[in-house]
Amino acid sequence: MPRVFNFSAGPSMLPLPVLEKAKEELLEHGACGQSVMEMSHRSKEYLSVIEGCETKLRSVLGINDNYSVLFLQGGAWTQFALLPMNLMTVNGAADFVLSGYWAQKAYFEAKKFGKANAVASSESDSFSHIPEIERAKLNPKADYLHICYNNTIYGTEYQSIPESIAPLAADVSSMLLSQPLDISKFGVLYGGAQKNMGIAGLTVVIIQKSLTERSPHNLPSMFSYKEQGDAGSMFNTPPTFAVYMLSLVLDWLMDEIGGLEAMYEINREKAAVIYDYLDESRFFRPVARKDSRSLMNICFVTGSKDTDLLFCDEAKKRGLLNLAGHRLVGGVRASVYNAMPIEGVRALRDFMREFEKEHA
Amino acid sequence: MPRVFNFSAGPSMLPLPVLEKAKEELLEHGACGQSVMEMSHRSKEYLSVIEGCETKLRSVLGINDNYSVLFLQGGAWTQFALLPMNLMTVNGAADFVLSGYWAQKAYFEAKKFGKANAVASSESDSFSHIPEIERAKLNPKADYLHICYNNTIYGTEYQSIPESIAPLAADVSSMLLSQPLDISKFGVLYGGAQKNMGIAGLTVVIIQKSLTERSPHNLPSMFSYKEQGDAGSMFNTPPTFAVYMLSLVLDWLMDEIGGLEAMYEINREKAAVIYDYLDESRFFRPVARKDSRSLMNICFVTGSKDTDLLFCDEAKKRGLLNLAGHRLVGGVRASVYNAMPIEGVRALRDFMREFEKEHA
Repeated sequence: MPRVFNFSAGPSMLPLPVLEKAKEELLEHGACGQSVMEMSHRSKEYLSVIEGCETKLRSVLGINDNYSVLFLQGGAWTQFALLPMNLMTVNGAADFVLSGYWAQKAYFEAKKFGKANAVASSESDSFSHIPEIERAKLNPKADYLHICYNNTIYGTEYQSIPESIAPLAADVSSMLLSQPLDISKFGVLYGGAQKNMGIAGLTVVIIQKSLTERSPHNLPSMFSYKEQGDAGSMFNTPPTFAVYMLSLVLDWLMDEIGGLEAMYEINREKAAVIYDYLDESRFFRPVARKDSRSLMNICFVTGSKDTDLLFCDEAKKRGLLNLAGHRLVGGVRASVYNAMPIEGVRALRDFMREFEKEHA
Repeated sequence: MPRVFNFSAGPSMLPLPVLEKAKEELLEHGACGQSVMEMSHRSKEYLSVIEGCETKLRSVLGINDNYSVLFLQGGAWTQFALLPMNLMTVNGAADFVLSGYWAQKAYFEAKKFGKANAVASSESDSFSHIPEIERAKLNPKADYLHICYNNTIYGTEYQSIPESIAPLAADVSSMLLSQPLDISKFGVLYGGAQKNMGIAGLTVVIIQKSLTERSPHNLPSMFSYKEQGDAGSMFNTPPTFAVYMLSLVLDWLMDEIGGLEAMYEINREKAAVIYDYLDESRFFRPVARKDSRSLMNICFVTGSKDTDLLFCDEAKKRGLLNLAGHRLVGGVRASVYNAMPIEGVRALRDFMREFEKEHA
């Protein structure tokens, strides 16, 4: 069967050259008589994989030596707990912007550990935009300010990094590597790899080394940013193959795409294909407010739930998969991560046009 | 380069037919136009993978419906913390058998949460055997009794499941799937997949459903056995590819090996090749006491650290890799997990014989 265009919110498409390289090397990595999956994580063969991966990630994102890069497990959900366990430990308080479901989950998990304070919310507008932070609500004693940079379910995204006095903590699961980002503005960034970074099972945490000093000594070792940082992501066996896949994705991003600026240009072009069509359509309606549109997750509706479902079903027959919106909101969602080729986006736009003609 | 014999304690060798199948399907799983790595974890294509994997694991191990099977992340180290967080919650106490390094780590992590009580230790004998539990030391109010079933570093293993009144909790990382095991004797079993179950990044937890009722309501959701069980390992995105690899390993174990009894037979034959030689050698000395020998990790020494190192170096030149003992104990360790073919074990024995002739 020909390759489908998979618009899933994640796990999702991987660049074809990455899959081909992984396939080529699956039985033997380099000339070492074994698969990368079989390597002892402490062998010199594997150390060159994981250290190379970190070097490439630092280079692509411009991460300086003041930051630790941690290759962890458990997804963003685990970080929702590790953040307060490690960092909400100076004054026992942190501020949260509620821009959607995942932002709320981070907030609810933090409430289990201390004073979590909501400083903005767009819930009353169905999370259709990134809310303005109410400066008066900021807690001057907040140990950090937490945001979810891109909201997959509602298709909204920060258009610039918010100012913050407290260290800024951001869930960047669905946008890291999609565009240039000034890492130095953040205290900590984290994300699951299964959107733009590779496969499920790897969580990347980029954290200011000074912040890791906050980790309490009595934390379980696996949950301590300090212990993980000191061990260089080798506190225990890391998800070795998932790190290798990230490494291949970074090779592709640097060598075939040409880096983050080039990726950003391509992603803007891809998103514009759909957003431009949505802006002129009299049938489909974009869900996110124009000033908050996500580059990665494009959400829209027809106004009829049945028609939305029909659209997704018909699209599937043409190899345009996983377009159904999140179960909480319904509608249609096209996730167009780095690996989605522009041909996929154009095929979707063409089908939308055809569907509109038939059903309008 | 020809395939090496990798004696690493894990990650380690995978069965060649498993790697070949993964390679064959890497670009497309079945006829669905995408790699298994790219599938949405909630797609029907992926659900058939993960549900099939659980069904096969239940069948191979004889796990009944009173148990939940959880596909988690973070390795045994994470479970060292989750066990007390979830289960040391009735009387705030648990008993621990200290049979080695990992058993001790589980004990130390538990101390962060409650009254961890050592009921046996072989530390004074350099962990050369599985210690007898001193019945008088058992805490009648223990919420569970924890053991490490196979001790990779010291090459020791329980020869039968110890009796326990409290629910028995066991780290089975390095022995699960190596032999038949009466699951019904345990309250909870857990292990990283990177020894006999597949690749790093997947942790399997098998737990009596009634025990998950102990999980406190205010635990971080990711750390709650109850919430993970209720969500059927889909609380968040599971390590989708690692679960698929376990599924392939189970196919191999059932279809090519013939099940756990057959695997056990092969593993005993493999271990005997080395242990028999050690018993007759006047040069190499086995480290573990005869009544506690591990089927999976065979540790031995020459009596000279330099000679041990020379042995490992020379072995490497013949494609016998990762034979150095753990840095804590040195010596030589041959990990002979399920995927190590008997040819690898014979090649090691032949080289030992040759080395002995030259250096004795």
